[in-house]
Amino acid sequence: MTAAPLDRLLAPPPAVVTVGAPPFDDALAAQGVDTVPVDWRPPPAASAEAVRAVAADPRLVEANRTAVERMGAVRPRLVDVRPAADLVGLGRHELLHAGPPIAWADASGPLRGAVVGACLYEGWADTPEEAEALAAAGGIELSPCHDRHAVGPMAGVVSPSMPMWVLDDGGRPAYSTLNEGLGKVLRYGAFGDAVVERLRWMERVLGPCLAAALQRHGPVDVGALIASMVAMGDEGHNRNRAGTSLLVRALAPDLVRTIEVGLRRADDVADVLAFVDGNDHFLLNVVMAAGKLVADAGAGVPGSSVVVTMARNGTEFGIRVSGTGDRWYTAPAAVPDGLYLGGYGPDDANPDIGDSAITETVGLGGFAMAGAPAIVGLVGGEVDDARTWTELMYQVTVAEHPTWTLPVLGFRGVPFGIDALAVVRTGIPPIINTGMAGRVAGTGQVGAGLVRPPLACFTAAIEALAGEAEAP
Amino acid sequence: MTAAPLDRLLAPPPAVVTVGAPPFDDALAAQGVDTVPVDWRPPPAASAEAVRAVAADPRLVEANRTAVERMGAVRPRLVDVRPAADLVGLGRHELLHAGPPIAWADASGPLRGAVVGACLYEGWADTPEEAEALAAAGGIELSPCHDRHAVGPMAGVVSPSMPMWVLDDGGRPAYSTLNEGLGKVLRYGAFGDAVVERLRWMERVLGPCLAAALQRHGPVDVGALIASMVAMGDEGHNRNRAGTSLLVRALAPDLVRTIEVGLRRADDVADVLAFVDGNDHFLLNVVMAAGKLVADAGAGVPGSSVVVTMARNGTEFGIRVSGTGDRWYTAPAAVPDGLYLGGYGPDDANPDIGDSAITETVGLGGFAMAGAPAIVGLVGGEVDDARTWTELMYQVTVAEHPTWTLPVLGFRGVPFGIDALAVVRTGIPPIINTGMAGRVAGTGQVGAGLVRPPLACFTAAIEALAGEAEAP
Repeated sequence: MTAAPLDRLLAPPPAVVTVGAPPFDDALAAQGVDTVPVDWRPPPAASAEAVRAVAADPRLVEANRTAVERMGAVRPRLVDVRPAADLVGLGRHELLHAGPPIAWADASGPLRGAVVGACLYEGWADTPEEAEALAAAGGIELSPCHDRHAVGPMAGVVSPSMPMWVLDDGGRPAYSTLNEGLGKVLRYGAFGDAVVERLRWMERVLGPCLAAALQRHGPVDVGALIASMVAMGDEGHNRNRAGTSLLVRALAPDLVRTIEVGLRRADDVADVLAFVDGNDHFLLNVVMAAGKLVADAGAGVPGSSVVVTMARNGTEFGIRVSGTGDRWYTAPAAVPDGLYLGGYGPDDANPDIGDSAITETVGLGGFAMAGAPAIVGLVGGEVDDARTWTELMYQVTVAEHPTWTLPVLGFRGVPFGIDALAVVRTGIPPIINTGMAGRVAGTGQVGAGLVRPPLACFTAAIEALAGEAEAP
Repeated sequence: MTAAPLDRLLAPPPAVVTVGAPPFDDALAAQGVDTVPVDWRPPPAASAEAVRAVAADPRLVEANRTAVERMGAVRPRLVDVRPAADLVGLGRHELLHAGPPIAWADASGPLRGAVVGACLYEGWADTPEEAEALAAAGGIELSPCHDRHAVGPMAGVVSPSMPMWVLDDGGRPAYSTLNEGLGKVLRYGAFGDAVVERLRWMERVLGPCLAAALQRHGPVDVGALIASMVAMGDEGHNRNRAGTSLLVRALAPDLVRTIEVGLRRADDVADVLAFVDGNDHFLLNVVMAAGKLVADAGAGVPGSSVVVTMARNGTEFGIRVSGTGDRWYTAPAAVPDGLYLGGYGPDDANPDIGDSAITETVGLGGFAMAGAPAIVGLVGGEVDDARTWTELMYQVTVAEHPTWTLPVLGFRGVPFGIDALAVVRTGIPPIINTGMAGRVAGTGQVGAGLVRPPLACFTAAIEALAGEAEAP
């Protein structure tokens, strides 16, 4: 694993490093001088004291190194598919959701829509109105996925009957639901008959078929799969086309051999293969669960400012940092800026939602876009922007991933281990690429784009770290 | 389709175009001047007269435009798999081979090995010695694949019982065998029992399963498949990992549905899926047949200097150009420069062999390496070289492919339509990346690397074009 950002800045000699001085940089460039521009702004005045305290903490460098070394050493494996009821400890009428904790009263449209859909799917209500009334009366308990070793894209709602991917790193587990496809799907807040029908098929056919295939196949090395897909134009958040294809290739023979031993019918297996072929995002949830394993490994190192969670519940953006345990730092979520489907526009989009920013938390997604230039067709922008975002993210990370490398950058590892201190110091928030859910419950997906977390999450984390900092 | 190289040179204003003057170019660059360096050397003295005559031919520009427009308009489709005997018109004891015409006496080790293997596979001989004696006595007729709408990788040997991919563009067909995998395989000149056994399984199981799946599925749009894979780090010659995965995804459901209707056994289908999963090069032969359809569409335009065939038989490299029909221009093939497997080294490598340079003929392979930087791990060199090769190839091509675009170059089309005149004028031969066969019959693959065709092929073509040139 490569070390500090400073090493990188010193790499191309002779060069001028310009810090927070674009006009100076432009003037040098116009004279043919090779520069390394650092996009820096002064930290928010309110947090200057806290920044000084955290930066001066003698544990900081070693604590951050420990956190990212633990994260980089994780080897996630895909081992099983099982019902959520067996895995995440749900109580009666309890649902998991994406992001930091939230109550029904504060929930946005897509989260409400997904809760309604889950109640219909589980048979807790017969109509959307009944489901809403149940939730409004406090009859549905909402708990964050992140508290149960789980992550969920968009609304991230998990109910007891849903099949979930089971990953582990040889010890700890991580879980995520199976991806339903695009458009009108539960995770985007849709809850029509087709949504519920699809969820029932996933429970009855898709989950058991995949479980049987995995049982025959043995564990899939998801760390290696991510390394392959990152070299094939996927960034693992909004492009999972190569990764999905590689997983199909790997599992298809064993899927078919479960027919041979009489466990299931050929048309079910064919339907499974067709369903996966129809959804380039099928692998996303697996990558997210792998990200959860990686990020969690970095948690709990006293004094570390490494970010180990970024997640949104559709109302607030929340982060957690290694040095302060389970504590969330939240602020209102922004609306992504991007491209819209069909006749939708900015007024139709809900604020940022989902646990999928776990991909950026571990160096994928927006952080790995240099290797996935084709993604600009989905999220907007120019090809050069994709590379620029990745290069910018090296300025707020403490390392590079040891095996998830970008061929186009000379096989450099993706920017890895977000340093909340660097984010506050430079004023550069992480870049996240994301799907956009419709604001109104029941709509589904309206687009995809780019979004930045509110800086306030990071300043709050640094202030909390400062409160526990050791004196120099 | 974008037009002439001149347009490109003029594109980034204001710039200095330096032609064949690296020191001048370096001096300008050192002063911060934006330059477009053209790697030019004076044409071979012997061909100066011919270059003048071809360049002055008033038909040239329009003829080349016509050739590449026809090539760019081809939409190759994969439609079937059938035995070679039904497709390529083989006589008794006749075999097809890669490259320009060749007699047994002139054949290199890997071609001889593949002929021996084909004789054993077809039951024309019981031992390798018998097969060699049969061939040496003139008992085996050898004909180029290219004369039968076919292309074959490496030795390219096709015998009557082998299943072949059938592609068409709505009218004309193109054929290629199914890829056997790597290592000790017939196309690399190996002929042991395992080789023959594998060919029999391909005939009995693999071919019929794929044919049945394609029949259910309907035609596969190979043009679109190539566009996808080029955006996913494949260059279509020595990297076909994404393309192979996408084809598996597309065909797997229909492969399984042939079980449902009782046409075949589940374990055969599982074996097919496992075989394909074990071979990242499985799609190569499909890409080659698509290239054949594309290149052939450009043939036969009077006055055109566009190259429509590049192929090697293991002894000679041969090209054909649009304006001179079926005539081959040949010269001794070079040995590729690259990386070797296991304990092999340069002394073990046969000269360049195979029809697979059809990929470069249509802008893929070495020409598309900018989009496939990970390939340097296979063929040698640095990541930046991959981009440099593609950029160099824009200097000897007359167009860019309309849909096979490279995201990393801002979605620019791959360099398309090699101009033999530009090759001779600049002294820049095409770049080809290729597998390397063992020199000794029976060895198999020894490595992979880069190779350039002999310039003599191109000067001979220009001299022939000059002989038919119209006066200005």
